[in-house]
Amino acid sequence: MKNADELRGYRILDGQSVREFIAAQGALAAKLGGRPADWNVREVGDGNLNLVFLIDGAAGTVCVKQALPYVRAAGPSWPMSPERAFFENAYYRSVAAYVGNCIPEIYHYDPQLYCIVMERLSPHIILRQGLIAGMRYPRLAEDLGEFVARACFFTSDFAQPCERKMDGVALFARNQALTRISVDLIFCDPYHSSERNRHTSPYLDERVAQLRADAPLKLAVARMGRKFLTQHEALLHGDLHSGSIMVTPEQTRVIDPEFASYGPIGFDLGAVLGNLLLNWYAQSGHATPADDRVVQRAWILAQSRRFWETFRATFLTLWSTQASGDAYPAAMFADPAEADPLDAARSAYLDSVFADMLGFAACKMIRRIVGFAHVADFDSIPDVSRRAACEEGALRLAHRLLTQPSQFRSLDDVIAALT
Amino acid sequence: MKNADELRGYRILDGQSVREFIAAQGALAAKLGGRPADWNVREVGDGNLNLVFLIDGAAGTVCVKQALPYVRAAGPSWPMSPERAFFENAYYRSVAAYVGNCIPEIYHYDPQLYCIVMERLSPHIILRQGLIAGMRYPRLAEDLGEFVARACFFTSDFAQPCERKMDGVALFARNQALTRISVDLIFCDPYHSSERNRHTSPYLDERVAQLRADAPLKLAVARMGRKFLTQHEALLHGDLHSGSIMVTPEQTRVIDPEFASYGPIGFDLGAVLGNLLLNWYAQSGHATPADDRVVQRAWILAQSRRFWETFRATFLTLWSTQASGDAYPAAMFADPAEADPLDAARSAYLDSVFADMLGFAACKMIRRIVGFAHVADFDSIPDVSRRAACEEGALRLAHRLLTQPSQFRSLDDVIAALT
Repeated sequence: MKNADELRGYRILDGQSVREFIAAQGALAAKLGGRPADWNVREVGDGNLNLVFLIDGAAGTVCVKQALPYVRAAGPSWPMSPERAFFENAYYRSVAAYVGNCIPEIYHYDPQLYCIVMERLSPHIILRQGLIAGMRYPRLAEDLGEFVARACFFTSDFAQPCERKMDGVALFARNQALTRISVDLIFCDPYHSSERNRHTSPYLDERVAQLRADAPLKLAVARMGRKFLTQHEALLHGDLHSGSIMVTPEQTRVIDPEFASYGPIGFDLGAVLGNLLLNWYAQSGHATPADDRVVQRAWILAQSRRFWETFRATFLTLWSTQASGDAYPAAMFADPAEADPLDAARSAYLDSVFADMLGFAACKMIRRIVGFAHVADFDSIPDVSRRAACEEGALRLAHRLLTQPSQFRSLDDVIAALT
Repeated sequence: MKNADELRGYRILDGQSVREFIAAQGALAAKLGGRPADWNVREVGDGNLNLVFLIDGAAGTVCVKQALPYVRAAGPSWPMSPERAFFENAYYRSVAAYVGNCIPEIYHYDPQLYCIVMERLSPHIILRQGLIAGMRYPRLAEDLGEFVARACFFTSDFAQPCERKMDGVALFARNQALTRISVDLIFCDPYHSSERNRHTSPYLDERVAQLRADAPLKLAVARMGRKFLTQHEALLHGDLHSGSIMVTPEQTRVIDPEFASYGPIGFDLGAVLGNLLLNWYAQSGHATPADDRVVQRAWILAQSRRFWETFRATFLTLWSTQASGDAYPAAMFADPAEADPLDAARSAYLDSVFADMLGFAACKMIRRIVGFAHVADFDSIPDVSRRAACEEGALRLAHRLLTQPSQFRSLDDVIAALT
């Protein structure tokens, strides 16, 4: 990792210097219009890692995201290379040709400032906030299912010759600082007494102690962790929770791919599903006499099912129409008589991706309840005992998904297990 | 791929220029001793890809291996980057600390000439030649089992923190020219009518036509091919057949790791096993009234079993004593009460590696009979119909291993299926 001192030309932007930075880029300044001194600049970053500026001019608006040389949520005492902005930009560029307008438009990348200038998404809000507020998004599940299917298919060995896939693997294998975070915070820390962990105490104390002594559970998590480290199927977003998705009722945009790496496709799927299920468990904590959230909960489950079904159907269609890669090479299966057995093999592969999705969803649910980074879905439930009850339910499901995987062959099986 | 024209400083060595090259390296010249003009230089390369010079001086001897900018067996019409020498050298350096004297000592690497100067192995011979001649090597199976276990364990996520593993993945993901060869020649070409294929005709014509129309077989091969492309468990030698192993009755040396890449551990294991089994099938073709090769065949099977058992025991011991990586992290399993379930999980993992070994062994057996590169074990059987019968037997076993994998839980199951 580079120290801040070693970052030649890097400086942390503020309201004034970000204005000067944009003013110096002719095309960006023209997009904003008017005099730089008249631009309205606001810093709105609320994530763990970055500065985010929104800049409004007379003619237009842009979003500027700069990676800080430390974890924002922890401060300079937890240093981290801002190189993650390089990988965020590289991910956007790698998938842009395949995912249509499911990602923001990228205007500019500055490699010295580790800074991305991109389309400002408005009036989009963070999906997590919308779900907590009880909003519904009719396009969400299909957009996300298609997004994961297309981003993963076209970066996989099903679509790419091995040389191109290996170029991608070589590039993203350098995204080590953020992979280290995933490895530790998802697959290790929650399962032993790390000082970075927290949970809703004292309500969950006993449950958490049990979990850390539960060898079958921990071995299932370790198996998923090994998959994450070794199974380089496709380029992943790497952090596809509901805080990395911005929505309006008509549009869905995926942001914040700085954790991008090659890995198992089920990892991105599991992030979406796991966070939908966390939200489902949180809904009863947000119920009021005026809104019992029953309809919202049913809607979330319907979206979970539609997300998976859209992913599956899209992936299978792409595989049968655009298989130009080295996995299951088209030259070997040119005979039309082989279509049926090939379809059966594709279906079996998608079953294994489904199983991976459930396993990773469960790992992500657990780590958001007993690990370092929690979710607003639970944290915003003011009554702590009620919050703990919601979290307890989510932990129970995750435990079953990991320790009894053979009981879950479909989303219906998952839905039947929700309590 | 670089053209020869783009290779700055590269030139194809000959008997005179290799002498000058060594003479210019003080330490190497001193090792050989005497006057360079008096050194004895012989070019002995008999593989598909490289020049190999043996140079004898008054005091010592060295081996010089230079990568050619084309496939030697095909000539300049099949160009190939000599960069493979870089990866061969990188593999040796990556595993040297772990595998003791199972690899030759590397004296020097010249990055412009793509040339490795290494220990001359003498009186070692190529294992394949020894096996064809009916020789037995008492240390062979244990040396190879330990070699694969140690080289793979120490480069895997069981031993390495993710950052170091990812550095290795990034480096070897550039070894694309030779990965392309494996992808095409092992997992694709043998299963359709590629002009690079050949087989013992007309004896195997019908069998080969069946094989190319056998959808379940081809799907099983495609599944192994996808594993090879995606499952980056450890640094592999990548071409560990009996032509890449040199032996004396006391010593075993692994050479020619230019196909090195990250991949599934079963790939290297399967290369060893598959080539032992090919040799077993070839033995009856080499039987004479004076030597029916029955004892030799039994010896080969005993070595196959001992190879796997040594690998398995060595790998498990390393895992339980030197697990410093991010897979199944030690911090999660610190409680001694978890030793038993952890052992069971390790054993289950080794079962999956065993299944991979059989699948890759079968792919490698088939490609050596119906693909581009054949093996001397069969090719040296002068009676063509007898050769075809041996090859037919090997194809039958490979077919069963790939299409009925659940029938093979142990080496005994494999041995029982040999006909």
